[in-house]
Order: sequence, then structure tokens, then C-alpha cells
Amino acid sequence: MTRPIRILGIDPGLRRTGWGAICCEGNRLSFLGSGTVTSNDTGSLAERLLELHGGLARVLTQWRPDEAAVEQTFVNVNAAATLKLGHARAIALLVPAAAGLAVAEYAPNAVKKAVVGAGHADKRQIRKMVQVLLPTADFSGDDAADALAIAITHAHQRRAPALAALAALAG
Amino acid sequence: MTRPIRILGIDPGLRRTGWGAICCEGNRLSFLGSGTVTSNDTGSLAERLLELHGGLARVLTQWRPDEAAVEQTFVNVNAAATLKLGHARAIALLVPAAAGLAVAEYAPNAVKKAVVGAGHADKRQIRKMVQVLLPTADFSGDDAADALAIAITHAHQRRAPALAALAALAG
Repeated sequence: MTRPIRILGIDPGLRRTGWGAICCEGNRLSFLGSGTVTSNDTGSLAERLLELHGGLARVLTQWRPDEAAVEQTFVNVNAAATLKLGHARAIALLVPAAAGLAVAEYAPNAVKKAVVGAGHADKRQIRKMVQVLLPTADFSGDDAADALAIAITHAHQRRAPALAALAALAG
Repeated sequence: MTRPIRILGIDPGLRRTGWGAICCEGNRLSFLGSGTVTSNDTGSLAERLLELHGGLARVLTQWRPDEAAVEQTFVNVNAAATLKLGHARAIALLVPAAAGLAVAEYAPNAVKKAVVGAGHADKRQIRKMVQVLLPTADFSGDDAADALAIAITHAHQRRAPALAALAALAG
């Protein structure tokens, strides 16, 4: 028997941070909710980080996840953009950690591989596969779809060691 | 009459974040306290950010500053290092903003220029000038000295518009 686990996936961005909550019970995944937390780009950087912090804290209060997963940052050729993303990502890591959750991190290619089966999948393919894996999922933007893909990746990953242990026992 | 203002300067870093609190009353600056908040590099990134968050929150509770100033990040040639610093810096901006403080940001060169008078000053010169400007200051490391230099920069900067207004009236 496995008890159901709620997983929150987060796709960080300073302007838009996507989030997606799923429930994972053994092999079964189900959609709980998804959305986007935004920050107003007329505010100071400190104000924008505070907006993201407040928005993500509300998501945690609403969905009470057991575990969280955050996309790792692609170190871009544009250093200023990489730095901005680093700021947003820190908030995405901090909020679930402050709530006492374990926070896993996955590289973008690992997420694509887990969801679509290929590390070079595009946004459209990810949206399609998220819709296949979570038929009741209702998401409007790419950020929310990516966040759900991250949550799905974590669901697969956390089962993998258990499967490996079973295979070792059977072997 | 100007009421005394407490300023907290923060020099962010993932391993060591320096902080320095000063009091500014008209032209007079005085030292309140300084130190370093550290994170354990054996922890996950989320855990380390949580450590910095808790440490800075305690500094705010202890010193109750009115305003905060954080050093802007130098976009390094090493993108991975820049990204790490961006994570730490987000926490340095978030904690005072969450406490309702205005958070100013200053480039490293602006800090050097304000404290030493030259944008290319080295660490040793900064420590010396911080000691001259705050004779009672007691700091052990470069991070705390840099944080005090940032607080001093903000004290100068926030007086500058008032002085300009006085000059305009006198002219």
C-alpha cells in the first residue's frame, strides 16, 4: 500500500512563475491544480520577489503539497537574464523549504526526457504529453504546463528507487 | 531636525552573507552592529537559502532597521557563480522587503566611490575607510566590512537629494 502524495512542481521566472500540483498514488497520477504567479515589472526587484513569495506561499497554503520539485536553471549566454532567473528561482526553492518540504531539482532535459521521452522535446510536445498523462488537467499557459511536467518528473523519479529495489529483490 | 534612521547594509553571498547596521542622524553616522550569516555547503540549495533567510530575519528582528541597502551583483564571466550569487541576493532583497522596508541597491563601484572616493578601491582600503567613518565599528571579515560600506553609501545617497533641495532653495 502506498499513501497518496501531493507534489508541487514549480517553473520559476521573475515575470511569471508556473506551478502545478498533482497527486501520486502508486502508479496513478492525477491533476489537482495549476496556475501562474506573476510579478509586476514596474516594481523594484525586492518588491517583485516579495510578490512571487506571497503568491507561492498562497499556493502552498491552498494545496498543502508533501514534496516539491523545481526546474534547474539553464545557464544562458545572457548573464543578466541568468541572474534574473536565479533571483526568481531562489524564491521557488525557499517557499517550500520554509514549509518543511523536501525540494528536488531537475534539469530541463531530464524533465523533457521523463515526460516526452526525448531530451530535445519542444513546448508543444510537453503540453500534449502533460494532457495525456493528466487527462483532467486544465492549464492555460506554457509555464503551468512546464510546472506540471516537473511534478510528473518528480513522481517518476521518486518511484524509480523503489522499483530498482523490487527488481533487486526479484533478481 | 532629522530623526535618527537605522540602515542595514547587506553584502550577499551563498556561503557568507555580510551584514552591517548603522545609525544615521543628519551628518552623523554611528556603528550599531555587524556580522556574517553563513550557510552550510553540505546542504541542498533550498536548505542553504533557508539558512540565509533565517539568519537575516534574526538580524532584522535584533536591529529593527528603517531602510536596507543591498550590493548589486557583478555579472561575472563565470555564469554558474553569477547564478549562485543571484540566489543568495534574492534572499537579501526579500527579507527586508517582507519586513516592509524600502530596499536600495548599489553597484560595487558606487559603494567604493562613496566610501573611498575611487571606483577601483581594494578590500583593504574599504576596511580602512569603514574604520575611519565608523570609529567604534568592530568587524572581523571583509563581508561585514563590505556590508557596512553599503550602509554608509546609502546614508550618503539618501542625504544627497535633501542637500540638492537645500542648494536649490539657497540659490
